[in-house]
Amino acid sequence: MSVEQAAEVAVQALRWRDERLEILDQTQLPAREHYQALESVEQVVEAIRSMQVRGAPAIGIAAAYGLVLAARNRLAGLSAAAESLRAARPTAVHLQWAVQRMLAVEVGAGQSLQDALLAEARRLHAEDAQANRRMGETGAALLNNPCRVLTHCNTGALATGGWGTALGVIRSAWSAGRLEQVWVGETRPWLQGARLTAWELQREKIPFQLIVDSAAAALMQRRLVDWVIVGADRIAANGDTANKIGTYSLAVAAQYHGVRLMVVAPTATIDSDLADGAAIKIEERGAEELTRCGDQVIAAPGTPAFNPVFDVTPAKMIDVLVTEKGYVRGPDRFKIRSHLRSP
Amino acid sequence: MSVEQAAEVAVQALRWRDERLEILDQTQLPAREHYQALESVEQVVEAIRSMQVRGAPAIGIAAAYGLVLAARNRLAGLSAAAESLRAARPTAVHLQWAVQRMLAVEVGAGQSLQDALLAEARRLHAEDAQANRRMGETGAALLNNPCRVLTHCNTGALATGGWGTALGVIRSAWSAGRLEQVWVGETRPWLQGARLTAWELQREKIPFQLIVDSAAAALMQRRLVDWVIVGADRIAANGDTANKIGTYSLAVAAQYHGVRLMVVAPTATIDSDLADGAAIKIEERGAEELTRCGDQVIAAPGTPAFNPVFDVTPAKMIDVLVTEKGYVRGPDRFKIRSHLRSP
Repeated sequence: MSVEQAAEVAVQALRWRDERLEILDQTQLPAREHYQALESVEQVVEAIRSMQVRGAPAIGIAAAYGLVLAARNRLAGLSAAAESLRAARPTAVHLQWAVQRMLAVEVGAGQSLQDALLAEARRLHAEDAQANRRMGETGAALLNNPCRVLTHCNTGALATGGWGTALGVIRSAWSAGRLEQVWVGETRPWLQGARLTAWELQREKIPFQLIVDSAAAALMQRRLVDWVIVGADRIAANGDTANKIGTYSLAVAAQYHGVRLMVVAPTATIDSDLADGAAIKIEERGAEELTRCGDQVIAAPGTPAFNPVFDVTPAKMIDVLVTEKGYVRGPDRFKIRSHLRSP
Repeated sequence: MSVEQAAEVAVQALRWRDERLEILDQTQLPAREHYQALESVEQVVEAIRSMQVRGAPAIGIAAAYGLVLAARNRLAGLSAAAESLRAARPTAVHLQWAVQRMLAVEVGAGQSLQDALLAEARRLHAEDAQANRRMGETGAALLNNPCRVLTHCNTGALATGGWGTALGVIRSAWSAGRLEQVWVGETRPWLQGARLTAWELQREKIPFQLIVDSAAAALMQRRLVDWVIVGADRIAANGDTANKIGTYSLAVAAQYHGVRLMVVAPTATIDSDLADGAAIKIEERGAEELTRCGDQVIAAPGTPAFNPVFDVTPAKMIDVLVTEKGYVRGPDRFKIRSHLRSP
């Protein structure tokens, strides 16, 4: 199955074309759909850092293609390129995982290193898209019917190899007639919900309404939410989950109101080296993400801001973890270890 | 004590000058400090509706001066003017209360109606500023030392006759050396926290950091918050409190983490006609508050949004209610009734 077949969606966050990596520039959405061609690993690092390409799985895939470019351009050793990619964003484990996997590639007889790397990057990309479809079906089957889902950030085709993780479950649930409507948190400060998820849902004609992030608890109080479904950037061995800032707030509100919480992420997101969430490094970005909105100044010059872009939701607050291997109810260290060993 | 003395702050949301009501246009802050002169009640209604003047106490005061303008201009009967003011924003009870109080004014011997109304509006304005100072001292005395406070929306000099309600407590706590730092939620969608509260705190050199609203729970999880202190737009007889959207989310997170919640509002905010929060009408504003940020388009054209601008926090989640009469711990119907009867 090719990437395109696995995804079966019009939107592609990234594609390999004419020996270059083309990324849909997510800083310009929804105003402009512009594919930018990247021709060097340095350009890929910068695109990841500036969030032109974002979403844990998508930045892993971008990094894989970045190493293909590094090998071709011979600008520096592969390991230096790998280091700069790894450092581009600290929280998402996919990036580390994809780089590791690329460095371990075996070059076949009569095959160039570049060809071997490209084949591996394509494989990783296609596998992610396929994993998305499996997670979508698994997650959708867990939903009662018809159901109101609240999601956060963007976990769709734009964030992955295609289809999506949490948004993939929402897509599959819609196809299966198990979805009544989606509440989309706008996801400050970067507005992934407003700019990206709303755009994806609108294209697919899935019914949704945008809300400010802080309205989620009030919707739950009014009994307008059945499930909170989110992705993950890094999951510790015990199931503690780092995801976009605001996820923990949703988890607390969901627990208080008896609303269920589903985390959807490929097993590559699980970092078995970390015992629990306390060990997850949380990226902090600049104050200007809060004090400006595009060209618009929204806080007085010099306003200090604290901008951690992820938070950690303890495993005990997660009702079910969905991966490409199936699902784990009430995830903990033991269930996750056994899940990872399953075929 | 004059309004200016009571306030003792450089910023004034509104002032009566040269027979006109001048308001500091809050839609232009922090980029521009512009006082707009209003010469008719229609202009006052429009300024309230468009949120050029905002904050429950401040819109009550603006309405009072609006009736002075209505009486002077003799464009329509006072009761028609009162009706249009009342309809400008539905949730804040101050507006209703101030209009009611103005309509009940008694005209003294040899006094014109206009003079009687102006005297009453000035009294109401000065009383609010004085009440703010009392609430500030009462609330600050309840804080442990030194303390990290999280606040939401803008409840400062800009929202009141001067000093502020929740932000008045923060100001008083700072003066009394009982404040370590303030966390300011940016308060989507209208960004009162980023645009107004940050601006007020910066002018007074009170240490603060701006955060996205959805980061509040994560800060509590890291034990960085001792108190949540907020204002109120309408309080039911049993203590259920309508306030800016996101307040309920903070209340849930505070309860989960054992962080205390203080509501600060003059007794005029208490609507004894409403048994509980379920009867409070919640204003919903347009989708464009979420899909645009100034000139910036932040969601695809046609994106549907649900934009309730207040939510209701049940009384049982409130640790203490501070008014100009003192404070009520664990507010309920009986304690509030007795509080209202106290001198």
